[in-house]
Amino acid sequence: MSGFGLTLMATDGAARRGRVETAHGAIDTPAFMSVGTAATVKAMTWDAVRSTGAQIVLGNTYHLMLRPGAERVASLGGLHRFTGWDGPILTDSGGYQVMSLAERCTIDESGVTFASHIDGSRHHLTPERAVDIQRQLDADVTMVLDECTPFPATHDAARLSMERSMRWAARCREAFVARAGYGLFGIVQGGVYPDLRAASVAALTGIGFDGYAVGGLAVGEGQQTMLEVLDATVPLLPAERPRYLMGVGRPEDIVAAVRRGVDMFDCVLPTRSGRTAQAFTRRGTLGLRNRRHLHDERPVDDSCACPVCRQHSRAYIHHLFRAGEMLGPMLLTWHNLHFYQAVMATLREAIGAGRFEAVATALERDLALGDIEATVDPLAGRNGADG
Amino acid sequence: MSGFGLTLMATDGAARRGRVETAHGAIDTPAFMSVGTAATVKAMTWDAVRSTGAQIVLGNTYHLMLRPGAERVASLGGLHRFTGWDGPILTDSGGYQVMSLAERCTIDESGVTFASHIDGSRHHLTPERAVDIQRQLDADVTMVLDECTPFPATHDAARLSMERSMRWAARCREAFVARAGYGLFGIVQGGVYPDLRAASVAALTGIGFDGYAVGGLAVGEGQQTMLEVLDATVPLLPAERPRYLMGVGRPEDIVAAVRRGVDMFDCVLPTRSGRTAQAFTRRGTLGLRNRRHLHDERPVDDSCACPVCRQHSRAYIHHLFRAGEMLGPMLLTWHNLHFYQAVMATLREAIGAGRFEAVATALERDLALGDIEATVDPLAGRNGADG
Repeated sequence: MSGFGLTLMATDGAARRGRVETAHGAIDTPAFMSVGTAATVKAMTWDAVRSTGAQIVLGNTYHLMLRPGAERVASLGGLHRFTGWDGPILTDSGGYQVMSLAERCTIDESGVTFASHIDGSRHHLTPERAVDIQRQLDADVTMVLDECTPFPATHDAARLSMERSMRWAARCREAFVARAGYGLFGIVQGGVYPDLRAASVAALTGIGFDGYAVGGLAVGEGQQTMLEVLDATVPLLPAERPRYLMGVGRPEDIVAAVRRGVDMFDCVLPTRSGRTAQAFTRRGTLGLRNRRHLHDERPVDDSCACPVCRQHSRAYIHHLFRAGEMLGPMLLTWHNLHFYQAVMATLREAIGAGRFEAVATALERDLALGDIEATVDPLAGRNGADG
Repeated sequence: MSGFGLTLMATDGAARRGRVETAHGAIDTPAFMSVGTAATVKAMTWDAVRSTGAQIVLGNTYHLMLRPGAERVASLGGLHRFTGWDGPILTDSGGYQVMSLAERCTIDESGVTFASHIDGSRHHLTPERAVDIQRQLDADVTMVLDECTPFPATHDAARLSMERSMRWAARCREAFVARAGYGLFGIVQGGVYPDLRAASVAALTGIGFDGYAVGGLAVGEGQQTMLEVLDATVPLLPAERPRYLMGVGRPEDIVAAVRRGVDMFDCVLPTRSGRTAQAFTRRGTLGLRNRRHLHDERPVDDSCACPVCRQHSRAYIHHLFRAGEMLGPMLLTWHNLHFYQAVMATLREAIGAGRFEAVATALERDLALGDIEATVDPLAGRNGADG
């Protein structure tokens, strides 16, 4: 073990306020990790990422191993130096994206064989190779290679898949080179079956990891099933290690998972939605391409302190998306990431103050409210174009 | 006249260091205006535009009248409020882009009739309408509607076109509503013919404008011809009014025009090039998609103080363009605009210090040098991809 662990600063019910120290700085938890797939958080400068309050970002091993290549990143000094982001970085193992994005993908006990979606080149990703690539990338948090159990899966299929993932997890632990401030996280699998999740937790804690992720969720099972799996899994995890719910989610999913003791999250929703004109607000989501925003001088979210909401109207952002201007995705990604980080800060503060349930309930209630009706368009019925 | 004029702070040969006061702040000249076509400088936040040292931006009347529409912008408080850019804005008259971008364009004495390239809607742009649209946009500097003389043109064709533009200029002057800090610029036409340029200057100064632009250049005539036209034109312009060379240009063109007494410039080169991986540097241009930058850890320009050159390597920007990531255009546009503004600041300082010719000559020499050879790739001959 590397000594990489969670300092618990407060608990409130099952919710935890903590801090994780890494080689590149601390992460206050509960934490949301912005997704920086190909060595960039899409449409964001790194200064902008920092300004949202982000303390840790996620890189995708699959994308980076193909382009520019892990050896390339290593020879350029690792991801921190390559990107200019000097804070903590977590990388996934590549497994999930190999199985969802790559071509001609085959899995056997040794690992995964696949063809690059970029140039068709053949690659073999083993547990040992996944760990080594993440070392080359200089990831503060390395994730074990696991098999993505399809959803839905029978109990037998989920068991066989989980058991293989556990054997791979042991190989990853063997391959991981301990370094101060660097950690390796195991991933709990087992589909929607509580007994398999419990067996997976037992296998992983038997091996011993620096943190524990819950994988195989947010794959179409719905929020209720996801929360049932968390209820069956999170209490079994060691309290002194960070808990990471992979690929989740909407703000309301995050609130519900923090309530159950989860510490770390990642999701493409704020960034991907930012590029498709969907905004997250305190009162739920907004589609800014909708013509009802044509003359709306309000900010995206009037309770938001981000630079976008301080400076720009919905009408302007609507125009940018209609005109196909890059500034639309840039501004909305920035706002969305700021919104997510603000939610996390609110949750952390609430746990520290012993007010988690009241604050979480208010957040959930507001998220379900929906937007306030737009202002009336003074040019309604007239042609939007002049001449 | 509105009192909108140029305060000359220093001259050095024909080069001028001045300041133009507008309703939204001062412009130090010689000045480069970043192009913000559709109410956005492409790939830039407005804070980033400010940080490059930009004091004034240019908006395109043609694009804005079609989308979101001048009335729409006016009802949202004008371009400053709509965009969040609170500094000076100059708008072109729309004529040049109507004649180059629109469909089914016909010109007669009344003005230009055309179809929108966006939705095919028909529009009629007259001198009066062009001025009124720019008032609705709240442009600090309004440009007269002029006819874009084709290049090459015979003396007769250039004369007839120029004479129509002069009649339109008089109509624009009539239509312009004087407001403190707002100005109307005339545009000198006449192709490559010194006598026509002189006649155009005489016509415009007879009408009286707040500033004088030289139009119809940078249309394929080459730098030498362009400078000959400037030599025949600029000395005839009133010294107490700003002089604006439209659509120019490369850094070396700007240096040469400042040497001849030009005060203001605009060009899409730094922004457009930024989106196509071309960087401007002290030693000329660089194509950052070129594989020779694959392992180049140097900044784009080691003499540049912009945030991009302080934080990122050529290798990183090369990767971003190869991966099709928006951050590539974002970073390179930022660098290019910063580079252009740094050149202008250098020229202003040199004029103020009475050292223009020495500084300009050194700039021109360096721009012609070309890049220093890239570092050796330590992974040369190996597959860039892992696995």
